[in-house]
Amino acid sequence: MTTETAVDLKRYLAERRDEVEAALRRVLPGESEAPAPLSAAMRYSVLAGGKRLRPILVLALHEVCSSLTGAAADRRELVEAAASLELIHTYSLIHDDLPAMDNDSLRRGKPTCHVVHGEAMALLAGDTLQSLGFELLSSRPPGGAWAARRADAVLTVARAIGHAGMAGGQAFDLMETGHGHETADSVARLRRIHALKTGALLRASAELGAIYAGADPDLREIVVRYGNALGLLFQIADDLLDVTATPEALGKTPGKDSVQDKLTYPAVFGMDGAKRELERALGEAREAIAPIAGRAQILVALAGFAAHRSS
Amino acid sequence: MTTETAVDLKRYLAERRDEVEAALRRVLPGESEAPAPLSAAMRYSVLAGGKRLRPILVLALHEVCSSLTGAAADRRELVEAAASLELIHTYSLIHDDLPAMDNDSLRRGKPTCHVVHGEAMALLAGDTLQSLGFELLSSRPPGGAWAARRADAVLTVARAIGHAGMAGGQAFDLMETGHGHETADSVARLRRIHALKTGALLRASAELGAIYAGADPDLREIVVRYGNALGLLFQIADDLLDVTATPEALGKTPGKDSVQDKLTYPAVFGMDGAKRELERALGEAREAIAPIAGRAQILVALAGFAAHRSS
Repeated sequence: MTTETAVDLKRYLAERRDEVEAALRRVLPGESEAPAPLSAAMRYSVLAGGKRLRPILVLALHEVCSSLTGAAADRRELVEAAASLELIHTYSLIHDDLPAMDNDSLRRGKPTCHVVHGEAMALLAGDTLQSLGFELLSSRPPGGAWAARRADAVLTVARAIGHAGMAGGQAFDLMETGHGHETADSVARLRRIHALKTGALLRASAELGAIYAGADPDLREIVVRYGNALGLLFQIADDLLDVTATPEALGKTPGKDSVQDKLTYPAVFGMDGAKRELERALGEAREAIAPIAGRAQILVALAGFAAHRSS
Repeated sequence: MTTETAVDLKRYLAERRDEVEAALRRVLPGESEAPAPLSAAMRYSVLAGGKRLRPILVLALHEVCSSLTGAAADRRELVEAAASLELIHTYSLIHDDLPAMDNDSLRRGKPTCHVVHGEAMALLAGDTLQSLGFELLSSRPPGGAWAARRADAVLTVARAIGHAGMAGGQAFDLMETGHGHETADSVARLRRIHALKTGALLRASAELGAIYAGADPDLREIVVRYGNALGLLFQIADDLLDVTATPEALGKTPGKDSVQDKLTYPAVFGMDGAKRELERALGEAREAIAPIAGRAQILVALAGFAAHRSS
């Protein structure tokens, strides 16, 4: 990547992150719209920062697909719909951090939700962030002409985060913890956990961009392949960062995968092997969008960013 | 109510409960479709019995509204969409029973989900039952002609269970527990908790029946008024049963409201006052449907059943 492209990507991400932050502040309930401790817990975790990668993926894929289809959604409505994925992602982080699950006390550089707001409000904040995500997806963009896309978006996300997606991945992950990884099919189990736990929602994020641009099945299939590769490389990079990064850079407790004996790419392939798997997934992401390469430079840059980030 | 009507209502409820049970067994994931412990936890709690009142409300209101509008949904698809409300209701029960919340060990006559399946799987089972509910609502009935009603159904339910609905009511309820109820506005706070915690989803259940029948705004308003009154009387009856019923009849631990110093109708109004409030809500339910009385005998019977049930 040239320096100029790197600078452009940095600005591209910053501009869209600002849009997403503004949308999140608009859609999150204030103290007059929800019980005060619940509103506080929801806002605390969602507004704690973060890369906002999932909403940015919606926006980036929408921009690319719109340039091909000629159809585009109203920007403000689109950003609010995209922001739903950050609400849902945050719900999963809050619940995963609870004592009954991964029992983590640091997230996005701050004490976790249950440490600050108590377990009951953290649990409810996660529950309501899921509901609020679906409220946004089912209402934006408004109007009868968009109804089929709204229903499609809800279905795509609901499947991606349910028992056959993100939450299913978390369940498989919990089943692995502390059981050792010596059996023959550890690679298959690792791939399944990562595809579900992180990959499914990242793939759905990309897919929403295509849905809102009215993509035909061929274009949608390209986007799904790209989203799957991106989800994979993002999680391998996450596994690597858990080994190499500092708590300050990571914003959460590093080294926990090893302590909890989690099934990760470094654990199964070693560090060098995990880096090779990462580059292979990056190649898959590039290959997926080869048919639309003329329009999709930003998608190549985004995949490189997700693979080689430092936090 | 005459004996003949009572028998008819009993059969009416049993027939629809059988339809709902069959739909729940179809839509819940088996061990090949989800991690086995997660599938087991989901199925354990959903298939533990229950009155299935929320799906039955969808079906009853759909039948009544369809007889007025002439529009009807495919029965199998409608029952599966209606079953989503039982999934979502069960999600709320599983999470409410967790140690961090109400810490209950008995529900629907059986040990609660976390007692049998552990806290982590109970938490995930609740999370996935919410997602699966939205998956059903966004996909049934299928086809482009139904897309606007699917999106409407998702939005109606998402709002009803979120921070301004069911989960908000649970948060207000938690804020009350053990704080004493001597202040001047305890009646207002009690009404707010009940309207949100139980009322919102029961009202949404009724509203879904109107949505799937293509009800116009006037008819929908009638249904909403009926649903609100039904939600209120259902919860007053629940409060009274917590004082009077046996564990066997109730299927959960009675007397917990008093032990936990919850804000309830008997606590605020006394038993006789609570019974008067119950009859008043029953009158509101009857009054709401007066404009469609010729078609709505079953709705009067349903309200009477919800008010005077023994469990």
